[in-house]
Amino acid sequence: MGMANESTITLGKADLLAFASDLFVAAGVARAMADEWAGILIWANLRGVDSHGVIRIPRYLDLLRRKTINTAPNIRVEKRAGAVSILEADRAPGVIAMARAMEEAIDRARAVHVGWCAARNITHSGAIGYFALMAAEAGMAGIVMGASSPMMAYHGARVAGVSSNPLALAVPGKKRGPLVLDMSTATVANGKVIGARDAGAEVPLGWGIDAEGRDTTDPKKITTLLALGGPKGSGLSLLIECLTSLTVGNPLVARALLEKNLADNPVQNGLAIAVDLSVFGNLDGFTEEVDRLGDAIVALPRADGVSRIFLPGERGNTVMAEREAKGIPIPKGTWNRIVAAAQGVGIEPPRR
Amino acid sequence: MGMANESTITLGKADLLAFASDLFVAAGVARAMADEWAGILIWANLRGVDSHGVIRIPRYLDLLRRKTINTAPNIRVEKRAGAVSILEADRAPGVIAMARAMEEAIDRARAVHVGWCAARNITHSGAIGYFALMAAEAGMAGIVMGASSPMMAYHGARVAGVSSNPLALAVPGKKRGPLVLDMSTATVANGKVIGARDAGAEVPLGWGIDAEGRDTTDPKKITTLLALGGPKGSGLSLLIECLTSLTVGNPLVARALLEKNLADNPVQNGLAIAVDLSVFGNLDGFTEEVDRLGDAIVALPRADGVSRIFLPGERGNTVMAEREAKGIPIPKGTWNRIVAAAQGVGIEPPRR
Repeated sequence: MGMANESTITLGKADLLAFASDLFVAAGVARAMADEWAGILIWANLRGVDSHGVIRIPRYLDLLRRKTINTAPNIRVEKRAGAVSILEADRAPGVIAMARAMEEAIDRARAVHVGWCAARNITHSGAIGYFALMAAEAGMAGIVMGASSPMMAYHGARVAGVSSNPLALAVPGKKRGPLVLDMSTATVANGKVIGARDAGAEVPLGWGIDAEGRDTTDPKKITTLLALGGPKGSGLSLLIECLTSLTVGNPLVARALLEKNLADNPVQNGLAIAVDLSVFGNLDGFTEEVDRLGDAIVALPRADGVSRIFLPGERGNTVMAEREAKGIPIPKGTWNRIVAAAQGVGIEPPRR
Repeated sequence: MGMANESTITLGKADLLAFASDLFVAAGVARAMADEWAGILIWANLRGVDSHGVIRIPRYLDLLRRKTINTAPNIRVEKRAGAVSILEADRAPGVIAMARAMEEAIDRARAVHVGWCAARNITHSGAIGYFALMAAEAGMAGIVMGASSPMMAYHGARVAGVSSNPLALAVPGKKRGPLVLDMSTATVANGKVIGARDAGAEVPLGWGIDAEGRDTTDPKKITTLLALGGPKGSGLSLLIECLTSLTVGNPLVARALLEKNLADNPVQNGLAIAVDLSVFGNLDGFTEEVDRLGDAIVALPRADGVSRIFLPGERGNTVMAEREAKGIPIPKGTWNRIVAAAQGVGIEPPRR
C-alpha cells in the first residue's frame, strides 16, 4: 500500500480482496459468495480492466441496498436438455450467476461435448473474459456473451438503440497459457470516454455522438457510444440480444425502447458456451497448435512504433504479473467514492 | 438481359443459374452439385454481395481444372458425438461442404439442441450468411465461421498474419423474416479496396496498409487489409482460426507463417453451429420478439442524412427483390472474364 503518484493510491491484492468481501458481507451477502464476488471483481483490476473492477463497488452496494441485486438469490437451473440449460439467476450478483452458468455449460459439455447455458435475470456481469477462461481451464473452448439495456447507437440512429453487448472467447494453450479475447461491440468502452473527459482530452471521431446524434471529438458532449464498425458492431450487438435475451424470454432492448422506459435497468442476461475440445480427438495437439500459432503471430514483423505484438489476453497477463507483485493502483477519486460507500455500511477501509 | 449502363450488363437469374451450372458441369461436376453450387453463388449476387458471386467463377474453374477443388468429393462425417460432428469435405466446393455441414449441425441440434459441425478441407466458403440462414429457416439460430490463410494484418504487425475470417449469425423472425449478419473481421472486405482502386478513388485511413506496413488512403498501395477495430478484429479472427481450424487439425495460419509458405492456399475450414430455439419453450414467442425488436430498431430517430435504418440482412433483402425482378447487373470486365473462362470449357454464354 502507498502512493503510486499524486492522484493514485496503491493497495495490495489481499487487502483489497478482504475489504471488498467485507463490504458485500456488510450489505447482507453470505461470506462465501462475497469472497467469490470480490475475487472476480479484483481479477479485473489485476488485469488492468479497471472499468470492471472495484470502481463498481459503490454502485453494487447501492443496488444491494435497494434489493435490486439479491443478497441471497435462489440461483437454479430451470431446464436442462441435451446441450442446453436455462439458469434463472434471481438477480444474483452478475459474476456469481455467470460463474454458475459457465460451470453448468462445462457440465453439459462433459455430457454432450457442447454446453449452452442461458442465464436470465443476472445483474452486471463484470469482465466476461473470466468466464470464458473458466472453460479454457477445463480444457474447453469458452464463448460468453452479455446483454444489457440500450446505451449505444444502432447504425444510422441518433440515439441509443442497443447495448455495447460484450463477447468473449477463450481457448487453452499449452506452455503459452490460454488465449482470451473480451471485447465490447462499441468502438471503445464507455470507461475510455470518461477517462478522456476527466483528462480534458479530445477523442477521435467514431467513439460517440452528442445529444443531437452528431459525431464529436469532445468527450464531454458524448451521450451515446458508437458501434464498432457501424453496421458490424450494432448488428453483432443486436444478434447477441436475440441469442441471450430473447431465448430466455427477457427482452431488454425492445422493452426499453417500446415501453419508453430508457431508465437504467440493472437486470441483464448472459450466455455461457463451452466446447469440449477433447471430442476432436487430441486436446494436447490442440493446445500445442495454439502455442505454435501464438509463436507465429508474436514473431510477425512489427509496424512502425510497435515494440511488441500481443496475443489476445497477453496484455492483461503482463499487467497482472506487475500488479500481483506491486499492488493495484486506484485513482483517488474512485477510492474516495469506495470509502464513502464503505462508511455507509459501517466498514473501515484498510489502513494505508 | 440487356445493358444497365455502359459498364454493366444485366442477366436474368434463371439464365445466370443455368449458365453457371453448365460451366461447373463442363468442368466435371455432377449436375445436382453444379445446380446447388450455382444457386448459392447467385444468391450472393441477388443480395448484392457481388464479391462472393459469379465473379468467382473463373477462379473456381481454374481450381477445378487443377483438381484443387474436387469435382467428385467424398464428403463424409468422420465423427459424430453428442452435439459435435467433424465433416471431412475432401476439398469439395466450399458452399457444398458448408451446406452439408449446416445440415449436419441442424441434425445434431434436433438430437441434443445444439449442433457444432466443424468442416475440414473445404474450399472457398462463399457468402456464409447463406448457411446461417439455413438454420433460421429450420427454426434455429445459426452461427457460421470461416477460416482461411493470412491476408490481414494482425494488430501491430506490418504484414498479413491472419485472415479476414468471416462470422455470420442468423435468427428466425416471424412476419419480418430472419435477421442475418454476415461480417468479415477486416475493416472492409477486399472487394471494396478493389472497387476504389478501379474507380481511382481514395479510401479512409484504416482500410489497409502498404508494403511498408503504413496506413494509406491510396487503394493502389494497399497490400494487406487492416482488422476491424485493431485488436478486436484481429483477435476475433485468431480465435476463429482456433475454433475452426485447430479443432480439426488443419492449421492454416501457423502453417502459412511458420513454413514460410504464404502462397495462396485455397483450402479452408468452416464451422456451422445450430441452436434449437424450441428447447427454450416457445419458438413462436421468440420469433414474435425478434419482430418486436426489429420494429423498435427501425423506428429509432435517425442520424442526419440517414433515410432508413436497416436491420441485419434487410439491405440484402431489398437488393434481392429488385434483382429478382430486374436481373443481376455484372460489370463488363467481370463478364468478359467469365465468358473467357467459359470458352475454356467449351460453353457459350447466354445470348444477350
